Amino acid sequence: MTRAICAGSFDPVTNGHVDLITRAAAMFDEVVVAVLINQQKKPLFTIEERIDMLAQVLKSRPNVIVESFDGLLIDYARSKQATVIVRGLRSATDFDYEMSIAALNRHLAPEIDTVCLMTDPKTAFISSSIVKEAATYQSNISALVPAPVADALGKKFNV
Amino acid sequence: MTRAICAGSFDPVTNGHVDLITRAAAMFDEVVVAVLINQQKKPLFTIEERIDMLAQVLKSRPNVIVESFDGLLIDYARSKQATVIVRGLRSATDFDYEMSIAALNRHLAPEIDTVCLMTDPKTAFISSSIVKEAATYQSNISALVPAPVADALGKKFNV
Amino acid sequence: MTRAICAGSFDPVTNGHVDLITRAAAMFDEVVVAVLINQQKKPLFTIEERIDMLAQVLKSRPNVIVESFDGLLIDYARSKQATVIVRGLRSATDFDYEMSIAALNRHLAPEIDTVCLMTDPKTAFISSSIVKEAATYQSNISALVPAPVADALGKKFNV
Amino acid sequence: MTRAICAGSFDPVTNGHVDLITRAAAMFDEVVVAVLINQQKKPLFTIEERIDMLAQVLKSRPNVIVESFDGLLIDYARSKQATVIVRGLRSATDFDYEMSIAALNRHLAPEIDTVCLMTDPKTAFISSSIVKEAATYQSNISALVPAPVADALGKKFNV
Amino acid sequence: MTRAICAGSFDPVTNGHVDLITRAAAMFDEVVVAVLINQQKKPLFTIEERIDMLAQVLKSRPNVIVESFDGLLIDYARSKQATVIVRGLRSATDFDYEMSIAALNRHLAPEIDTVCLMTDPKTAFISSSIVKEAATYQSNISALVPAPVADALGKKFNV
Amino acid sequence: MTRAICAGSFDPVTNGHVDLITRAAAMFDEVVVAVLINQQKKPLFTIEERIDMLAQVLKSRPNVIVESFDGLLIDYARSKQATVIVRGLRSATDFDYEMSIAALNRHLAPEIDTVCLMTDPKTAFISSSIVKEAATYQSNISALVPAPVADALGKKFNV
Repeated sequence: MTRAICAGSFDPVTNGHVDLITRAAAMFDEVVVAVLINQQKKPLFTIEERIDMLAQVLKSRPNVIVESFDGLLIDYARSKQATVIVRGLRSATDFDYEMSIAALNRHLAPEIDTVCLMTDPKTAFISSSIVKEAATYQSNISALVPAPVADALGKKFNV
Repeated sequence: MTRAICAGSFDPVTNGHVDLITRAAAMFDEVVVAVLINQQKKPLFTIEERIDMLAQVLKSRPNVIVESFDGLLIDYARSKQATVIVRGLRSATDFDYEMSIAALNRHLAPEIDTVCLMTDPKTAFISSSIVKEAATYQSNISALVPAPVADALGKKFNV
Repeated sequence: MTRAICAGSFDPVTNGHVDLITRAAAMFDEVVVAVLINQQKKPLFTIEERIDMLAQVLKSRPNVIVESFDGLLIDYARSKQATVIVRGLRSATDFDYEMSIAALNRHLAPEIDTVCLMTDPKTAFISSSIVKEAATYQSNISALVPAPVADALGKKFNV
Repeated sequence: MTRAICAGSFDPVTNGHVDLITRAAAMFDEVVVAVLINQQKKPLFTIEERIDMLAQVLKSRPNVIVESFDGLLIDYARSKQATVIVRGLRSATDFDYEMSIAALNRHLAPEIDTVCLMTDPKTAFISSSIVKEAATYQSNISALVPAPVADALGKKFNV
Repeated sequence: MTRAICAGSFDPVTNGHVDLITRAAAMFDEVVVAVLINQQKKPLFTIEERIDMLAQVLKSRPNVIVESFDGLLIDYARSKQATVIVRGLRSATDFDYEMSIAALNRHLAPEIDTVCLMTDPKTAFISSSIVKEAATYQSNISALVPAPVADALGKKFNV
Repeated sequence: MTRAICAGSFDPVTNGHVDLITRAAAMFDEVVVAVLINQQKKPLFTIEERIDMLAQVLKSRPNVIVESFDGLLIDYARSKQATVIVRGLRSATDFDYEMSIAALNRHLAPEIDTVCLMTDPKTAFISSSIVKEAATYQSNISALVPAPVADALGKKFNV
């Protein structure tokens, strides 16, 4: 049984995240989507709203569960007995950053491995911050996020 | 059940390959190590020798099998009903190359995904060609390849 | 008729910017230099000062006009009936960032294309922030910015 | 009047090339597609076949002409009074290579500039060599090249 | 006589820094470790604490001295009659950043050169900020920093 | 006393090589310029011609010596009691390649370190192969190579 973790802020979840989680769920026995509680950043959506949107979007995947965590990801992964951390790579620059995080994690927890999936070019340019900026200016973001997220953004920004 | 493929020339298998295959075997239900029969390149070891060395080195892994193939990897993967291709990434330059191969494969076979593992810094610099060049000049390569490979190289180059 | 846009903060315009705008003006029928009004950043020069310096420096180019804008660049480009966004690339890291912005813009406005010019190695290391930091410490910045900008920086920092 | 050059081996022309040339033709007054006669490489298609396929595929673009050349691209560009060389960038690794070619060309002919267009993710993974390899193994390449090229490849490889 | 400078915030010094400084000290006649006094950042350790830890850790190296500086590094290097600035490179992304800093420094002080050492893979993933974050969550950081630093971090975070 | 090695094919030496060697000679006590005897490549100039040109071009540098070698660079470096290998870096792509060579060399000879100098943007685009290609087509290469090399190329290609 391999349990994998997809962690992030998901503020909010985008079609890029959904693609990644779906592919991980096709590959591993169980996928934990872990929403980071970051006290230092001021998110647009509360931790509850973010978990709700993820749960709604991913409800058709029986082997995906959604949770929140704080602290170091590697400690959380260990506590969940996960052995794989899944990361999406968009570019060579991403790679260099992820390489050093993966090396640190290997040092702290050699039994947990990092797996990289290349983002689909169709969604690779989507990020939560780009979506929020586009929504601020009333751009059409319906192809960038799942419908419930588009609705929630619409309410925040009166799109 | 997830079957993953690790393909390459393995001319010869190095400690870097073994690390990658071992990590894939810990993560997926079954791993097929597929040795490419490339008519255009002149290998140092025959296809039989390469398969023999791999089989010997990996014999303690019950969920790893070793085979050869020719043609396109994606066609071979489909014929084996594998859904994952495993690649090792050493650097950002590697990433750019693998990204374009992965995109082609996604086009030819959307049901097969590519998974990248970051090479362990301890073995990331090892490649079959570097090992062969070092062996040519009687360098000590015993920390770079499994013992049976070091023996075989020793016989070829009178190390 | 091709109208191209060079956008940025230009706080202040540097010799690197001037090189890029001049090359774009040699290539396209009309170039709009668009100064971003960013409410979140605290600029050194006001929007009026930045436009004034650009206008002064570029006054000998009849096919270059200088304006300000806020909101998304792609919306502004569309409103100006521009079909090309010009970006300067200094490095592979720049490329990865610009690639994702260009992909988002292609999604939002397929009729507008992004063109990249490689920065001249003689000016590639110049950025507005580097110029401001150097000026803070009374370094000689006369080879990094046009004369009117050097004067304006001199007044701000008593160089 | 800006004349731009898109040069390459085009052995054969792919949908990626067509996308690039079409975008250049929308941007510049005239585009010369220049097929390199490389004595050292053994092409699959003769120079005449490659020009024919390009001409057929691009015949609806009145401002595109197709020619062959040998020698240095920069000498050819100068002889055509072209002031822009158009290059497609797929990745950060591409960028580093193109940067050094562009710097050499700037040294040899400062009046000619290099313009980079980012390849569309939908075609970025397509290259002439990948198409030829896929065709060798009877893969379906109809979404990778224009119809006349698919036909020509079919005849060569009995697809 | 070649005097080299290793500059940074060293908040706190890590095993990665020590590796770099030690290698520079083996190569150049004298190495000045220069601790940046950055008024804008809020460091964890005071400038005196950082210098003390460096001095303690490097006391066995007779050709290494530890100092603090503010202002531009290149002005400080000149004032010390140093002719070499030593930088550690972990990745291709690091390289692009360091390249532009080195180009600026070459412009400001052509007599001072920049030398890059590749970080040892064993320590490449260590950074002061990663160490501080790990210490915050009571992770074991004893393999990441020299013993006196581990002690000091333990006191700050009650590890 | 630090002895450094600059190795390469130098077929022929370019202004880029001279810049690198000169900077290394300003930094280290002694610099050995080591010309690789590569049996597999067919060079334009014989090993004697290459050494002659280097010796002529570098004769004003008392701490530079020119030699040839074959086999592994790291074995040669050890035999010369050199402790530093100097490499020129032009780009992030170069970096990734050099990183893996440096890691191999650290494994084979931990007492020998690799130092990278960033190429001067003025010469970064120059390579021996580009110079030879340009000379083949009678381009003006006098700014790319030292005068004796330009003469020798002129004789080979009737420039």
